[in-house]
Amino acid sequence: MDNNYYAVIMAGGGGTRLWPLSRADRPKQMLNLGSDRSLFQIACDRLAGLFSPDRILVVTVTEQAAELQKQVPGIPAENYLLEPMPRGTASVVGLAATVLQKRDPQAIMAVLTADHFIQNVPYFQKLLRIAAEVSRKNMLVTLGITPTHPATAYGYIQRGVILENIEGQVVYSVQRFKEKPTAAAAQKMLADEDHDWNSGMFIWQVSDILSEFEHLMPELASTLREIGQAWDTPEQSKVVAALWPAIKAQTIDYGIMERAKRVAVLPAAGLGWNDVGSWDSLFEVLPLDSSGNILLNDPSVIIDTHNTLILSDGTHRLMAAIGVDDLVIIDTEDVLLVCRRSDSQKVKEAVQQLKETGQTRYL
Amino acid sequence: MDNNYYAVIMAGGGGTRLWPLSRADRPKQMLNLGSDRSLFQIACDRLAGLFSPDRILVVTVTEQAAELQKQVPGIPAENYLLEPMPRGTASVVGLAATVLQKRDPQAIMAVLTADHFIQNVPYFQKLLRIAAEVSRKNMLVTLGITPTHPATAYGYIQRGVILENIEGQVVYSVQRFKEKPTAAAAQKMLADEDHDWNSGMFIWQVSDILSEFEHLMPELASTLREIGQAWDTPEQSKVVAALWPAIKAQTIDYGIMERAKRVAVLPAAGLGWNDVGSWDSLFEVLPLDSSGNILLNDPSVIIDTHNTLILSDGTHRLMAAIGVDDLVIIDTEDVLLVCRRSDSQKVKEAVQQLKETGQTRYL
Repeated sequence: MDNNYYAVIMAGGGGTRLWPLSRADRPKQMLNLGSDRSLFQIACDRLAGLFSPDRILVVTVTEQAAELQKQVPGIPAENYLLEPMPRGTASVVGLAATVLQKRDPQAIMAVLTADHFIQNVPYFQKLLRIAAEVSRKNMLVTLGITPTHPATAYGYIQRGVILENIEGQVVYSVQRFKEKPTAAAAQKMLADEDHDWNSGMFIWQVSDILSEFEHLMPELASTLREIGQAWDTPEQSKVVAALWPAIKAQTIDYGIMERAKRVAVLPAAGLGWNDVGSWDSLFEVLPLDSSGNILLNDPSVIIDTHNTLILSDGTHRLMAAIGVDDLVIIDTEDVLLVCRRSDSQKVKEAVQQLKETGQTRYL
Repeated sequence: MDNNYYAVIMAGGGGTRLWPLSRADRPKQMLNLGSDRSLFQIACDRLAGLFSPDRILVVTVTEQAAELQKQVPGIPAENYLLEPMPRGTASVVGLAATVLQKRDPQAIMAVLTADHFIQNVPYFQKLLRIAAEVSRKNMLVTLGITPTHPATAYGYIQRGVILENIEGQVVYSVQRFKEKPTAAAAQKMLADEDHDWNSGMFIWQVSDILSEFEHLMPELASTLREIGQAWDTPEQSKVVAALWPAIKAQTIDYGIMERAKRVAVLPAAGLGWNDVGSWDSLFEVLPLDSSGNILLNDPSVIIDTHNTLILSDGTHRLMAAIGVDDLVIIDTEDVLLVCRRSDSQKVKEAVQQLKETGQTRYL
C-alpha cells in the first residue's frame, strides 16, 4: 500500500461501561475479551499487510503509554503520541495530523479506534484502501456501519447522493451527521434505509483536515501549529505541557464533521463491527455454547443456566450458577458484578455511585 | 424448672443445602446468618432460664466438637457427647438417653435441633415446660409445627384425639407419622387441618425412651447398654470406638416414633419455626429491606434490584447488583454462587457435581 498512508489509533479512552473488568488503570482497549490478545493488540493486528508498524501512530494519555507500548512493542516509540490529559477526539486527530504533516506533508491518515470488534478484516482493509483513494479527491471520508437494529447508543450519518462506485463499494456524499437518536427516530432511520451508524473511523489527507481545523476550529488550529513547530525538537514536551491543558475538549464529530463540506461515507454492511459498548454486546461478538452462555476463564458449575455471561478475571474461584437466565456475572479480585443483560447500560450508574461516595478504589 | 429436666442438642449434622457458606468443616449450625451468633449459639441461648448450662448436653461428631465448645464454653466439657462418626438420629438420642440415665435415672430429656430458627422463644419455652409435664405420664412427646403452606420438604404428623389442654396448649395423641409427601398429599393435609410438620424435637422420660429402644431397636439397645456401662469410666473411649462403627444408621422417626404407642404431639402455631433448609428460606426469617432484599455483611452497590439475597462471607469485595430479581448471591473466599431463589434446592446438585468430579476442596 501507499507509503504515505498512515493509521492513527485513538487509544486514550477511559470508559466505564465494561466495569468492573475495565478500571482507571486498565481501560477497555487493554482488556482481553474471550481472546489472549487485548482489543488494542487486535486493533493493531488487523492492520497487518496494509500498514507497516512504522506507519501506525497511537495517540494515548501518559498513564496508558507504557502498557500499550508493552502490548505492541513493534510500533516505534516516537509513534506513540501522548496527550498530557484527554481533551476530546478533535485534539487527538489534530495532534496526529500535525505530527504527520511535519513528518510527511503528503500523508493520508486513517483515524481508527482501539477498542472495537471488527470481524471481517479483509473487508475492513478493502474499505481503508478505497477510502484512501476517495480522500485523494480532497474528501473527508468516514466509514458508516449499515444498521442492523434501531440502536440509540450510536450517532447516525444520513447518506446524500452516490459519488462513485469503487470495486463494488458505493461511495456516498454525507447529507448530515446526527447525534444519538431517540428510539422513535432510530426506528424511522432504520426503516428509511438512508442512514448509517457513525463508526468514528475517518480517512483523509492530513493537509485537508488541517485546513478544516483552520476554518472550523481556529483556536485549536493555532495551538496545534505551535505544538507542531516544537514537535520532534528539544522543546516538544515543554510546549505540549504548556499548551495542552488550555485546549477546550471537543469531539471531531461536533468540531469538524457536522460542519465540513466535502464529506463522503462508505456504508459497510457485513463488516462485523461492534463497539462493545456494554456487557450485553459481547453476546453479539463471542461464540455461545449450546445454552447460549459465554463462560470465560474459570472453572464453573453450571446448572439450568442460559444466555448468561460468566467472566472470572483470574480470581480462580469456583463459579456456580443455578437456574440463572440473561445475566452478566463479572468476578474480579475486589469487585463482583451481577447484572441483568438488558440493564448493562446501568453499569455507569454504579460507577457514578462509587464516585459520589468516594469509593474510587473500585474504579 | 425441674432439676431432672435436660436439653439434648443434636449438633452433628453436615448438610450441603447452604453451600457454599456451609462446608465440610463449617456445617450449618456453625454459621452466622444475619446475626453475630451462630445457629448453634442461638439454639443454646434460647434455653436460658429453662436449662442451666450443666443440664444442656450436645451430641456431635469428633471433628466438630472443638469448634462447638469454643462457641459455647459455658456447657461443661463432659456434656459434649462425641459420636466417632454419624450413625443417624436414633443413635444420637440413644447415646444421650444412656448417658443421662447413668447420671440421673429420673431424667427427662428434650431432644432439640442446633440449626433451626425459632422466633417466639417464650412460646418455645412454654411448649418445653408443658411437654415435660405430659412426658411424666409416660408419653413420648413431639412438637408439631402448624403448617403454613403445603411443604414437601418436611415429614408430617397426623393428630389423633385430644388428650388434654394445659395452659391453653392442646395436647393430641399421634395418629401417624408420615414421610415427606408429594405436592398433592401436602395440599390435602394442609386443607384437612389435621396434620403438623414434624419438627424433629422430642420430649420424654429417659426411662421411657430406653424402654422403647429395648422393644423396637433391640440391637441398638444392646450396644447402648454396653456403652452405658463403660461411660464415665476409663474404658469409655475404647468401648465407644469398638462398638460405634457397627451401629446401623437409623433415624429416630423411623426406628421409634413411627411404631411407638404412647405418642403425643403439641401443635405449635406462631412459634416462628423454620428449618432454614435452603437459601430461599432465609427470606422467611430475616428482615427484608424496602426492596425485599437481604444484604448481609459487605458494602454493596444496588440498583433496581429486588427480592434478592446478597451474602458476602468476609471477602470484603464490593458487590454490585444491577437489575437483579429473585436471586441468591453467595460470595465466599473460593466459591461464588449465583442461584435463582426458586432453584435453591438444586444447590445439592452442584455439590453432587463437585463430588463426582473430585473437586472436594470446594465442599
